[in-house]
Amino acid sequence: MINFLNNKGKRMIEGIKFSGIESGIKAKGLDLGLVLFDRDMHCFAAYTRNRVKAAHIHYNRKQNTDAVRAILVNSGCANACTGRQGIEDLISISDKLSCALGIRNNQILFASTGVIGKRLQKDLIINKIPELLASLHENNIHVFASAIMTTDTFQKIVKFSFEGEKKYSLIGVAKGAGMINPLFATMLVFLFTDYPVLSNAFSPYFKKCVKETFERITVDGECSTNDTVMLFSKKGQEDSSCFDKFKDAVFKVMKELSLMVIKDGEGATKVIHIIIKGAKNKGIAERIARRVATSLLSKTAFFGCDPNWGRFIAAAGDAGVPLDPDRVEIILEGVTLARDGMEIPFDEEKLKHLMNKKDIELIINLHSGKASFDIYTTDLTYDYVKINASYRS
Amino acid sequence: MINFLNNKGKRMIEGIKFSGIESGIKAKGLDLGLVLFDRDMHCFAAYTRNRVKAAHIHYNRKQNTDAVRAILVNSGCANACTGRQGIEDLISISDKLSCALGIRNNQILFASTGVIGKRLQKDLIINKIPELLASLHENNIHVFASAIMTTDTFQKIVKFSFEGEKKYSLIGVAKGAGMINPLFATMLVFLFTDYPVLSNAFSPYFKKCVKETFERITVDGECSTNDTVMLFSKKGQEDSSCFDKFKDAVFKVMKELSLMVIKDGEGATKVIHIIIKGAKNKGIAERIARRVATSLLSKTAFFGCDPNWGRFIAAAGDAGVPLDPDRVEIILEGVTLARDGMEIPFDEEKLKHLMNKKDIELIINLHSGKASFDIYTTDLTYDYVKINASYRS
Repeated sequence: MINFLNNKGKRMIEGIKFSGIESGIKAKGLDLGLVLFDRDMHCFAAYTRNRVKAAHIHYNRKQNTDAVRAILVNSGCANACTGRQGIEDLISISDKLSCALGIRNNQILFASTGVIGKRLQKDLIINKIPELLASLHENNIHVFASAIMTTDTFQKIVKFSFEGEKKYSLIGVAKGAGMINPLFATMLVFLFTDYPVLSNAFSPYFKKCVKETFERITVDGECSTNDTVMLFSKKGQEDSSCFDKFKDAVFKVMKELSLMVIKDGEGATKVIHIIIKGAKNKGIAERIARRVATSLLSKTAFFGCDPNWGRFIAAAGDAGVPLDPDRVEIILEGVTLARDGMEIPFDEEKLKHLMNKKDIELIINLHSGKASFDIYTTDLTYDYVKINASYRS
Repeated sequence: MINFLNNKGKRMIEGIKFSGIESGIKAKGLDLGLVLFDRDMHCFAAYTRNRVKAAHIHYNRKQNTDAVRAILVNSGCANACTGRQGIEDLISISDKLSCALGIRNNQILFASTGVIGKRLQKDLIINKIPELLASLHENNIHVFASAIMTTDTFQKIVKFSFEGEKKYSLIGVAKGAGMINPLFATMLVFLFTDYPVLSNAFSPYFKKCVKETFERITVDGECSTNDTVMLFSKKGQEDSSCFDKFKDAVFKVMKELSLMVIKDGEGATKVIHIIIKGAKNKGIAERIARRVATSLLSKTAFFGCDPNWGRFIAAAGDAGVPLDPDRVEIILEGVTLARDGMEIPFDEEKLKHLMNKKDIELIINLHSGKASFDIYTTDLTYDYVKINASYRS
């Protein structure tokens, strides 16, 4: 697996072109990206569980996802809570863009990220179509990756290659830094591959991968109106000589992108891997993992390098699932802080030092069964407050 | 209703004495408070729903709450996650304190607040009993109120008087500033009255009041291991000439104390009253109210005076209950920001100005029914992070 930094300016996959431009949706910076496929692609998609969904989700669901030729993505405007007009704006853009590309207007999908409640400036976008097309190139993925960013501080591109009858590639690109939530991160994620996939058989595996990667991270417990994960694959019979390798690649690329998103969590200075063990069942382990991962007192303790394990067990006890406090064991960076629900004497200075790292592991063993669940979270910092108290201004 | 500031040094209720001293549990400051009743009192109590409960909760539940003579409260140590020994520490203290007071050892109740996972320094407390008793006085409630504070920035004392066959008083004292959670704030709250109450009849009303006051506030969505609300009343037949007045007083004192707690929310610069209207049923209204009240993006928007209504509707849509986005109306400080799920043009500068206040009202009308629910929350600020990233150090 390699990421973009080693690949700048290289061709990713033959027949897939990328572009990114400044359209003016944002006050400044790249904000409009296009991906063009030279043949029909199948699109697997997963969207936010939020009851309030952006226009692009309503729109995409009505298109034929079996013959996709392009995806247009903008940052700076979520095009959410824009009603029927938000969808009609996409129809107008699709009409113009499909003409310019010489494809049918139902072969274009959309994705948006940015401020909720504002309409997309469709004329601005339509006027920029020539510029957008002029910038299309197979080696332009880094420009596309920048165009979809909001508060992200770095590009998120991953490439993975594998071999069967021939050599295949899978590339993934993501944005997402805030509004990241356990039941689906606020993200736009796009995967592209020249490996041929038959839609029906692969769909459950695609959803499973989303669940076990992007639904295992949280920055702030917020669920966006725009969350989108899309995998674009060549259509056709799977190459059975490397189907397992392909499936493995999909999981690995999603996992890597999800970790890049959490590392770029708004204001975050560290990533905490929370592992719940010894639960009666996976559901209990998950509820406790998600509760600890979204606990503000746990997240501020991580920021402050404070091995205040009482906050972790208090959050666990507040998860709304059975918990026997007298069995709980808490292990932070390999050091046992509590056993049988009570403190084990530990060297506080040593622990503070261990917590002053970018990656921290917290294990909570319930000693009540054999099930487990893990999730990644960030610390809560001054900068998270700063970024989000002034996001629009 | 009057609060402490107008009452400093006055007698509160005849026969109820207060004290507060520096015992050394905290590095500095008052940290140990005692209330002594000159006759048996009945105690109504409500405790945290957290599965991890402090030692004083386990202990109190085994005592006879119908003949209480004293309550000992400490700050600086939660005495939670201290196992059997945590309870035995209370038994030891109770044995010594009851001897010194000349009462039975099952007539003393306890409450603690502070760091989780550390044992109470019982010898320190036992050695300070003479000093604690020497400070007991009917006009000493302000010292007691200080002794139970942790990160609180002001004392929380409320007094309410009402008349029936004779004049009665109800006084309430609370602590609580962080770990404040919708399903019961992290608080210690004590109410005292000379109005006589028969236990059984009044208990449901007591619980209802707790539910509609202290369970309607949130600072950080955290549920403490130590939450405690206690009402100590004279034993006897109710004075029927003013039972309704007494009930009204209990609600008002609890409401006022809950608002004092939220106003003192850790790092908070403002209190936001969130009102959900037009819901199909109260359960839906409550879920949405609690979700918006704990949304970090909503809370940082309030801090930043940003009328970013998209964050409120996104949080509402993430509450896990049915919601028709196209009917939602959002009114902030009397100004309609969105109707039918879409933005109504508003003067952003005017809104920023309106949001730069200490008390803000946000109405979200779902236009789907007649049920409603309200809750109070705070903004999320740099200071919340600061306070909690360094609470123990």
